[in-house]
Amino acid sequence: MSAAAPLRLGLAGLGTVGIGVVKIVQAQADLITARTGRAVTISAVSARDPQKNRDADLSAYAWETDPVALARRPDIDVFVEVMGGHDGPAKAATEAALAAGKDVVTANKALLAHHGQALAEAAEAQGRVIRFEAAVAGGIPVIKALTEGLAGNRMKRVMGVMNGTCNYILTRMQSAGLPYDTVFEEARQLGYLEADPNLDVGGIDAGHKLSLLAAIAFGTRVSFDAVELEGIGNVSIDDIRLAEDMGYRIKLLGVAQMTGRGLEQRMTPCLVPSASPLGQLQGGTNMVVLEGDSVGQIVLRGPGAGMGPTASAVMADVIDIARGLRLPTFGIPATQLAQPTAASSATPAPYYLRMTLLDKPGALAKIATCLGEAGISIDQMRQLHRPDDAAQNAIVLIVTHKAAPADVAHALSQFGPTGVLVGTPVAIRIEEV
Amino acid sequence: MSAAAPLRLGLAGLGTVGIGVVKIVQAQADLITARTGRAVTISAVSARDPQKNRDADLSAYAWETDPVALARRPDIDVFVEVMGGHDGPAKAATEAALAAGKDVVTANKALLAHHGQALAEAAEAQGRVIRFEAAVAGGIPVIKALTEGLAGNRMKRVMGVMNGTCNYILTRMQSAGLPYDTVFEEARQLGYLEADPNLDVGGIDAGHKLSLLAAIAFGTRVSFDAVELEGIGNVSIDDIRLAEDMGYRIKLLGVAQMTGRGLEQRMTPCLVPSASPLGQLQGGTNMVVLEGDSVGQIVLRGPGAGMGPTASAVMADVIDIARGLRLPTFGIPATQLAQPTAASSATPAPYYLRMTLLDKPGALAKIATCLGEAGISIDQMRQLHRPDDAAQNAIVLIVTHKAAPADVAHALSQFGPTGVLVGTPVAIRIEEV
Repeated sequence: MSAAAPLRLGLAGLGTVGIGVVKIVQAQADLITARTGRAVTISAVSARDPQKNRDADLSAYAWETDPVALARRPDIDVFVEVMGGHDGPAKAATEAALAAGKDVVTANKALLAHHGQALAEAAEAQGRVIRFEAAVAGGIPVIKALTEGLAGNRMKRVMGVMNGTCNYILTRMQSAGLPYDTVFEEARQLGYLEADPNLDVGGIDAGHKLSLLAAIAFGTRVSFDAVELEGIGNVSIDDIRLAEDMGYRIKLLGVAQMTGRGLEQRMTPCLVPSASPLGQLQGGTNMVVLEGDSVGQIVLRGPGAGMGPTASAVMADVIDIARGLRLPTFGIPATQLAQPTAASSATPAPYYLRMTLLDKPGALAKIATCLGEAGISIDQMRQLHRPDDAAQNAIVLIVTHKAAPADVAHALSQFGPTGVLVGTPVAIRIEEV
Repeated sequence: MSAAAPLRLGLAGLGTVGIGVVKIVQAQADLITARTGRAVTISAVSARDPQKNRDADLSAYAWETDPVALARRPDIDVFVEVMGGHDGPAKAATEAALAAGKDVVTANKALLAHHGQALAEAAEAQGRVIRFEAAVAGGIPVIKALTEGLAGNRMKRVMGVMNGTCNYILTRMQSAGLPYDTVFEEARQLGYLEADPNLDVGGIDAGHKLSLLAAIAFGTRVSFDAVELEGIGNVSIDDIRLAEDMGYRIKLLGVAQMTGRGLEQRMTPCLVPSASPLGQLQGGTNMVVLEGDSVGQIVLRGPGAGMGPTASAVMADVIDIARGLRLPTFGIPATQLAQPTAASSATPAPYYLRMTLLDKPGALAKIATCLGEAGISIDQMRQLHRPDDAAQNAIVLIVTHKAAPADVAHALSQFGPTGVLVGTPVAIRIEEV
């Protein structure tokens, strides 16, 4: 093969992921050239502090302290953005790169969740691409699987456990029998949490990722604001234990599906069967489930974060560009993406309900009546003794048959007026996986 | 987007997969046009019997009874080969298509396992592509994941359960406690077996698939002849039960890895931990595990066969071609693929050993001595009573620490001369997953 021109990268961000990219570019140069027919090189890098000690030899690269200046350099073909942040320098530099006619590879889910439509339109107006494999589920090549590998399918549902920190916390609570606050603190000390922990435990980071998958799956504009978000801060060790007894595990699960009412997107704690692939997922590993009308269900599992996996995903995008594989950002041209109707969740599902009732004759009948009047039937019910409860309250667990979320909410609102309820009932959706 | 020329298919083979392709082309025309910017149409089809009743409207398509004639038609751009067979018409038609300057999409693992190198060279000499996502693991987009999604990785190991019929038989034996012959007959009656069942249960079909993955993973010429093949016909219900008791399940597992001695490829029954994703895999579902130096371990799971899943994979390749995404058949140009040194398996692993011994003092010591003299140490040992055995023989199970396959074979050869062995010992590799 004759020598094609090298593909020259400008790398903005020299944290864990950026250094991971440098390592692959340096260590795998021969492999990459064999696979692309050309050299992939780094021309210049940028980071806030050029003096900081980093675990890589950067001496051959030009330095820019301003990522916007990096993005505009004439000696780069691809702007690789691994700084993070959905506004400020990451956005300005990405816009500058596109305006200067560069392709963009980014790991920045927040940026695309907030500005994906405008950025995709800007890229396509310039004939440039934005690639973001590293933005969703780390090393798992899920953007490629969905955009290309399943392109012959009308997608039905996309699901995922896509925040490793949340899954670590939930599985650690379960395995060690520890409450949320204790495990949260452990995770913080282990360095697993973002500077703003709510990005993780509030479900925001995972919600960003879900909104990007939904855009590709359903050909709609990214609509992160329409994702129903509920974090894991209210998941109790009691519910984890009781769910386990009934054959379920609690996961922070993202679900996107197109319904007759519009696009449902939610990132919320859900129960899934313990024996299912999602139920078996332990620790920081990620999993994405893709359901298409022809293919059925495809499950992808792998590391959702870390230097090597994330850099692997960045490099997959770089190599695609080096090979001349070019697609619109979200699979179809940005101007053709539909504005989705945001539907609040109406898809029926079984629900797990836990409540404390006064131990009085007829208490359970009153609750059952509320459910029945809301059109909800009961699949399983257990009443648990709490021997150390001087007040003689009873814990009641109910698993319903499939019920509409609004009907469940209505039934719950009727529990209080019965006068038999102690505290606030817990309701968690059981996603059928 | 301005209307690009349609991409015109010639479809050879109207069995389950072919009809699945017709259904997607017809039902998803709008979706495919949105995703590719052009129409994808079928110009002509071929099958042996034009009169046969098929569950699709084929009236708009020209008919050819000879697939070679179909392949040469001037009104097709892509030859889609879903006939099967590694010689004869499938090979002749594929060669004719390439010679006539057509791209090829094929589901034919046998054809590529036997003739992949020559076909890839022919395609690349013509500037044409051969795509074969449907040939490996059905609907799972594993060729794309490996060739593109993990292209920044030096691959370390590729594993897979890639024959759904074998996995069905093994999991059914386990769940129902039935012997191999009974379940084999069930599978035959359910229509799960190829006309030549040895393609399935002999591991040949799965071995074909493994050889294709190995070529991409390690940049080597397809070398199916070097795959160590052992089918599932000798897997006994006893071993399935005893393995389960020790926390393992038996799978027909393909493993390809590059070692200092060369390329190891094997498709053999293996024990894997019951709790691992591979151990959890039930029924006809397929799973592929891809391990790269940067990404770590990626697991892909999905339907390995059937109309919808296989047609989904065929259409992914067609859509890639419609989008202009073009790569060499095995990821790097065929002329650059290395001739692999075929290494017989030398990578050490723990082994499961089952044998029957005369219940005499010192019997077990003699066996342990054979193992020790071969440099093999014992991790677990169990001696089982067999109350109905009038001869008072003892069943002994041993799990070894990691041992080289040759050392295990040598130790087994020494069991007989001890005079305490009854029958033939069983040895099954425990693959660390």
